[in-house]
Amino acid sequence: MHHSPKTAPECPFTKRFPSALNKDDKYFMELAYNQAIEAWKQNEVPIGAVVEFQGEIVGAAHNQVESNNDPTAHAEMLAITQASSAIKNWRLNEATLYVTKEPCPMCSGATMMSRLKRVVYAIPDPKMGGLGGLYDVNSYPSINHSLEVEIGVLKEECLQLIQAFFQLKRAHNKGSI
Amino acid sequence: MHHSPKTAPECPFTKRFPSALNKDDKYFMELAYNQAIEAWKQNEVPIGAVVEFQGEIVGAAHNQVESNNDPTAHAEMLAITQASSAIKNWRLNEATLYVTKEPCPMCSGATMMSRLKRVVYAIPDPKMGGLGGLYDVNSYPSINHSLEVEIGVLKEECLQLIQAFFQLKRAHNKGSI
Repeated sequence: MHHSPKTAPECPFTKRFPSALNKDDKYFMELAYNQAIEAWKQNEVPIGAVVEFQGEIVGAAHNQVESNNDPTAHAEMLAITQASSAIKNWRLNEATLYVTKEPCPMCSGATMMSRLKRVVYAIPDPKMGGLGGLYDVNSYPSINHSLEVEIGVLKEECLQLIQAFFQLKRAHNKGSI
Repeated sequence: MHHSPKTAPECPFTKRFPSALNKDDKYFMELAYNQAIEAWKQNEVPIGAVVEFQGEIVGAAHNQVESNNDPTAHAEMLAITQASSAIKNWRLNEATLYVTKEPCPMCSGATMMSRLKRVVYAIPDPKMGGLGGLYDVNSYPSINHSLEVEIGVLKEECLQLIQAFFQLKRAHNKGSI
């Protein structure tokens, strides 16, 4: 059986402070990146997400699978639930989801079910990604929705964060035996 | 914009009372069916799910998208979250999910992410199903998990329930104009 270590390795990355004068894709992805740093500090896989609606953030979350003991508590799921609650509508047709890694099969499905207008992700995931990496849930006409998808915004920064997390975690775990 | 009517048409179906002396797939699917009837009564699409672990129900839920205003509040998602909370482990390797319709792309992904042992569904869904109907998320070796899948238990009953719901809802809505 797999046991998660109780403490996170120290995070060598710092949050970003983008100017709100230019709310472009990079601006929103930097806020998703900050959520991923929060995840790291809580010893969760550092993936973060925000939902933008009419230029404002209506959902912001990070992975909480371990702390919530809930396999559905991915960043995207939590941010989508928050956004629907904030705008009082489960249909997010005018909203964009920003997430630091390509959504997994569950979260890719959720982007369709929530009828998001647009998804922007930083790192493609050929092993698990459901929006073009492994397969593309957005490619089926019988699913009554389609998304605009944008790939690669802040990719290097988000990739370094995840890679460093797993590298440092392995070292951290060895040290604790 | 789409508006949901406030009241549900009266449900002509009744709950089932299977004997707990024989806890087979049909027994658990009948409990999922009862959840679907609950959904109908709350004017939600009548889909229900239960999670079985060591012969006991550790999650039981129905669709709550409209009442929660949450696109992620499908029966399967809620039942999985309940089950992980109940057994204090987000990995459901020894559990079986019973659901009255083939899981959608989001919920199919969730069955993989939660590492369920087995999924039993009543009605296949060639338009939206992610476990064999439209595509099969269980068919990718790079997703580090695979499920046993069983199809068709209590299919006719679950199908009649959903079909009647949409038929009566159309009539109900016309009557209310």
